[in-house]
Amino acid sequence: MESGNDIELVRNKQVILKDYVSGFPKESDMYVSRNGTMKLKVPEGSNGIVVKNLYLSCDPYMRSRMIKNKAITGNYYIDSFKPGSPILGLGVAKVLDSGNPNFKKGDLVWGRTGWEEYSLITDFQNMFKIQHTEVPMSYYTGILGMPGLTAYAGFYELCSPKKGENVFISTASGAVGQLVGQFAKLLGCYVVGSAGSKEKVNLLKNKFHFNEAFNYKEELDLDAALKRYFPEGIDIYFENVGGKMLDAVLLNMRAHGRIAACGMISQHNLDKPEGVHNLMHLIYKRIRIEGFFVFDYNHLYPKFLELVLPQIAEGKIVYVEDIAEGLESGPAALIRLFSGLNIGKQVVFITQE
Amino acid sequence: MESGNDIELVRNKQVILKDYVSGFPKESDMYVSRNGTMKLKVPEGSNGIVVKNLYLSCDPYMRSRMIKNKAITGNYYIDSFKPGSPILGLGVAKVLDSGNPNFKKGDLVWGRTGWEEYSLITDFQNMFKIQHTEVPMSYYTGILGMPGLTAYAGFYELCSPKKGENVFISTASGAVGQLVGQFAKLLGCYVVGSAGSKEKVNLLKNKFHFNEAFNYKEELDLDAALKRYFPEGIDIYFENVGGKMLDAVLLNMRAHGRIAACGMISQHNLDKPEGVHNLMHLIYKRIRIEGFFVFDYNHLYPKFLELVLPQIAEGKIVYVEDIAEGLESGPAALIRLFSGLNIGKQVVFITQE
Repeated sequence: MESGNDIELVRNKQVILKDYVSGFPKESDMYVSRNGTMKLKVPEGSNGIVVKNLYLSCDPYMRSRMIKNKAITGNYYIDSFKPGSPILGLGVAKVLDSGNPNFKKGDLVWGRTGWEEYSLITDFQNMFKIQHTEVPMSYYTGILGMPGLTAYAGFYELCSPKKGENVFISTASGAVGQLVGQFAKLLGCYVVGSAGSKEKVNLLKNKFHFNEAFNYKEELDLDAALKRYFPEGIDIYFENVGGKMLDAVLLNMRAHGRIAACGMISQHNLDKPEGVHNLMHLIYKRIRIEGFFVFDYNHLYPKFLELVLPQIAEGKIVYVEDIAEGLESGPAALIRLFSGLNIGKQVVFITQE
Repeated sequence: MESGNDIELVRNKQVILKDYVSGFPKESDMYVSRNGTMKLKVPEGSNGIVVKNLYLSCDPYMRSRMIKNKAITGNYYIDSFKPGSPILGLGVAKVLDSGNPNFKKGDLVWGRTGWEEYSLITDFQNMFKIQHTEVPMSYYTGILGMPGLTAYAGFYELCSPKKGENVFISTASGAVGQLVGQFAKLLGCYVVGSAGSKEKVNLLKNKFHFNEAFNYKEELDLDAALKRYFPEGIDIYFENVGGKMLDAVLLNMRAHGRIAACGMISQHNLDKPEGVHNLMHLIYKRIRIEGFFVFDYNHLYPKFLELVLPQIAEGKIVYVEDIAEGLESGPAALIRLFSGLNIGKQVVFITQE
């Protein structure tokens, strides 16, 4: 009879958070440990799975998990990373051993995992089996993963878009923005995106075929910039940054406009978030602004895949990724994302299947 | 044949706006003119109506019409009062002469009229014929008029309330708030209101039977006050004030909370509106905030009356009014409203039918 003690331990490299982070995160807030070990077998009696991680996803929300747990009224709190433990995130992985009837050895999955070579996963709430393998597996950290579903639910469910409407997207070349823009274009909307470099602006115009794009860092007056691109105002704003940009957008929304609040990345590293002064415009122009959490829309994932897989196959939707090689590059990749240096979806490649 | 020249002119007292107002409005920004005259006959060929005004409504939005027209992107602008001309507002009136097939002499109406004894009305977009006269006619400036429909549409349509939810209302003893609170109580919600005096707080608790009420002026820390009354957070916030209160509410909303943005009266007299810092909570807790304009919901008015008239008749809903006597008292009544000195719906009584 096999006993747990007989199973060989393998090395398990991990990206560890040193301590809670205040101010702007640095690469040195994390380190790669080679001391970890792992049994590639599910503990007896557990319904968990042991996976080999293939790709890790760098996502803006991870910034908020680097601070100490903040209790927030309303039965909600931000679940922090644990100093001294591996960073947690979304990734693509291969099942090596399974105590769970829904997953078997050899399955490819995407969902919550650790920043390490191997993980034991016991929470299956947001774990998806990968059924379509004719696309790059990294896509399941991006266009076919959480950012893809975010773009889909945020745009179609929250914004109720109509052909011909004016759509503005901030951090438009990011994992979510590039997809929202392409959805809007395919629907026949007028689409403008903002981003933080000339290279990204070029990408928006030439690769994703946005109608217009601008570098917000070159605009002294965001209100004037928006008026230049939207003389008749904005119907839909896909909000990824918050702060000053949101304030300028409020001035330029049209009556019955809709704002999907997906993220406010500009606010993460501030001790006190910037004030937004133009909320009166919510009333003047009957605007709806709605925050959302992508995993509330898991039921739409099959419908989303049905829409987007053929569009990828036909080249109607493209996706740009920024792939860092090796677990060791994880900390730098995450900081690149927080600094806006990535071009497209930031991914960390760990290993082939 | 009757000719226009034969018709007798009558005196038409008017409340005139002296000039655009900056800072806090004063009674002396308006004056009562006795120089006006009026023919009590519709001009030949016009489809207008001539009315005798019975009650005028003092409403917070009127503050924004005392400033110079502000063009706002998105085909919307605030339509100012004209210095030297009568103030405009909602009121209850009796038709004296009609060139319009929908109205006849003797009809009672409510809708847009002027702050004067007699008005010629040619815009019927928001003019309602009064069908139910078993209630005080002043009610059509309040519970059965624009504030009533505002409470109904804002609460039932925008907030999708459910029995047992936690509801918070600011300026809760005002024309709209007192009704929202009673709707919420009748639905089985836990209801807390804030107001600006001890007298109003008593009214909320003892007259409208809110579960709790507090005087925001006595709270140094609005966040702490809200945590005291909502240890488990707020599901629905009926927003009438903006600024600091909204910021504190955002900290205390629960997941999937809804905010109906009806007004932000605290912001009207500021050169630059206060900043709201806690909008990240829209995302943390998937909150929806939506501005609205009551006359977008005119189609619900019959349904609203059907609900509320029996409740008034049975005493299940009560309504408190603060009635100033005579057109001369108009300027003072309006300033009382802006200062929060009114107790309940501020009305100006002009004359009996």
